[in-house]
Amino acid sequence: MRFANISVHAAAAVLAAAGVLQAGPARALEPLPAQPPVPADNPMSAAKIELGKMLFFDPRLSIDGTVSCNSCHNVMTNGTDNRPVSVGVKGQKGGRSAPTVFNAAFLSAQFWDGRAATLEDQAKGPILNPIEMGMPSEEAVLERLRKIPGYVAKFAEVFGENGLTYDNIAKAIAAYERTLITPNSPFDRYMRGDKSAMSEEALRGMELVQSVGCTACHTGPNFAGPANLPVGQGFFQKFPTFTNNEYVKKYDLMSDTGLHSVTGKEEDKYMWRVPTWRNVALTAPYFHNGSVKTLDEAVRVMAKTQLNKDLKPDEVRAIVAFLNSLTGEIPPQTMPVLPQTANMSVVGDQ
Amino acid sequence: MRFANISVHAAAAVLAAAGVLQAGPARALEPLPAQPPVPADNPMSAAKIELGKMLFFDPRLSIDGTVSCNSCHNVMTNGTDNRPVSVGVKGQKGGRSAPTVFNAAFLSAQFWDGRAATLEDQAKGPILNPIEMGMPSEEAVLERLRKIPGYVAKFAEVFGENGLTYDNIAKAIAAYERTLITPNSPFDRYMRGDKSAMSEEALRGMELVQSVGCTACHTGPNFAGPANLPVGQGFFQKFPTFTNNEYVKKYDLMSDTGLHSVTGKEEDKYMWRVPTWRNVALTAPYFHNGSVKTLDEAVRVMAKTQLNKDLKPDEVRAIVAFLNSLTGEIPPQTMPVLPQTANMSVVGDQ
Repeated sequence: MRFANISVHAAAAVLAAAGVLQAGPARALEPLPAQPPVPADNPMSAAKIELGKMLFFDPRLSIDGTVSCNSCHNVMTNGTDNRPVSVGVKGQKGGRSAPTVFNAAFLSAQFWDGRAATLEDQAKGPILNPIEMGMPSEEAVLERLRKIPGYVAKFAEVFGENGLTYDNIAKAIAAYERTLITPNSPFDRYMRGDKSAMSEEALRGMELVQSVGCTACHTGPNFAGPANLPVGQGFFQKFPTFTNNEYVKKYDLMSDTGLHSVTGKEEDKYMWRVPTWRNVALTAPYFHNGSVKTLDEAVRVMAKTQLNKDLKPDEVRAIVAFLNSLTGEIPPQTMPVLPQTANMSVVGDQ
Repeated sequence: MRFANISVHAAAAVLAAAGVLQAGPARALEPLPAQPPVPADNPMSAAKIELGKMLFFDPRLSIDGTVSCNSCHNVMTNGTDNRPVSVGVKGQKGGRSAPTVFNAAFLSAQFWDGRAATLEDQAKGPILNPIEMGMPSEEAVLERLRKIPGYVAKFAEVFGENGLTYDNIAKAIAAYERTLITPNSPFDRYMRGDKSAMSEEALRGMELVQSVGCTACHTGPNFAGPANLPVGQGFFQKFPTFTNNEYVKKYDLMSDTGLHSVTGKEEDKYMWRVPTWRNVALTAPYFHNGSVKTLDEAVRVMAKTQLNKDLKPDEVRAIVAFLNSLTGEIPPQTMPVLPQTANMSVVGDQ
């Protein structure tokens, strides 16, 4: 895994030099592109996407056959599990709330702390994480998949002879994830000219998120930072920035040190990748630890901890209405049929 | 729930009187009908099936939002989880292996011990079982679904005003399950006239299961008992019948007393509903406790414990080949899109 080690300060300097941060509000609010960027070394194909979908839904990628990627990033709903923190194998709880997989393809770095540069890098993590899917090694994953004839054939079809590798598992999953885009939110329709797509209250919220200052960070087509950041360069911000308020203790916002927990560097303390606003109305509970139950409270917390502002109730309502206008359409999908094994199971009673 | 309280002895007497058990091998081996029976009080409709599919896949029917019907009865694979016993909420393990949901609509009673008469009765159980989905009460389930506007609307559409009831949850799930049929197995194609559909070895196995005696119980279109048993009248058999062999201890076949554990009646000790052979090649591990890992060993165990016979290796291979010819086609499906909640989650950190 590569680590995104450029903080927001360094990134901002680079961007300011490039003229990116000078862009005004019109630039800050952008509709969702139809297609995310695709890396040159992992081109999309129908067969690869189908293989990736199978793997994404296959609980046999977990040690006891109970947890798939979809368990925590449920693409039949909003790409999350709507839990404070996720539950992995053997009932173990993680420390962070599952981010949505929808539109993750537009992010320049993955995970709350941005420690994975790409979707490919990200996909490799949870499978081997002992409290998530719990496989003991890459080789153990491959050994299991080699026992499933349908996978052996599919990897050969997509990646050629000897195509069943851990890197290619990640590539297939990432290719599938690049199809998980939610277009046509009311905001996107509004931006494309349908002025009836957003309510008056949502439009007032759209003004407020700019005037209050939220879009200083929640910018770009995914409201998660400027578009066109280099791959692996996460757009980070310190959270909480203002700590002298009731919320920091109430929601335990400083136990987890964010990027610092990965790099150990003092300047990375409490630095987090700016998360997307797309579909945020659906992905409660909120923040890296899932400690805030409702979107209106999340808005109050963010205004106070990041901008030291106390919003009025009607301002909160308007911003919540705007955030609801960022709910897109879940793409219709066929269900994968997972390749099976005859006469024996590849998962035991782990 | 109604309990199937007619043992195989009583049932056999009834059937013998009716001439059913006199039917020869041609009668015993039947292709799978295209449609299962549908109860008069739960007619099928496209909207009801779609609602049932949503519910079947919705982990919010479990207390902590982690377990859906599909978690243990995975319809992207063979309708099971391929585990010895399933894992419910909080990492808890059940005592029995999840039976396949595919073709369950053809069974006259549900669960290993036949304690549910119908798919509707069955569906109500796991949601409230503390070690499965763990909801505390029917009312708690309804309270949660009432918070999800899309479900409220969908239940009204399918069942009319005030249609969101626990009975109707079960009816919708059962309607969906009646679509989970796996047609066109090699055996079915052979029975319809395609003589090339089965191998020589599988055909020898087909002769053997009749001559050895397996089809005395594994009869009917689902190989799980005679067709047309009255609803709720399970077709039971004692397992193990012969106990003086190595397998009983090795695979712990007598700790669980089957139907007796439900009724407490001495005559129900070790009585089990005869399970289907359809897709049995895919649903390892085997038996009510999932203790036997491979199909060939399951065949040896059954011959010894039920018929007191020691099969030769080539006989086991032939029977396994025949059982593999009962693998049908998983029906293609669209993925459900689950109705969502805005601004908050209905599952907390249970």
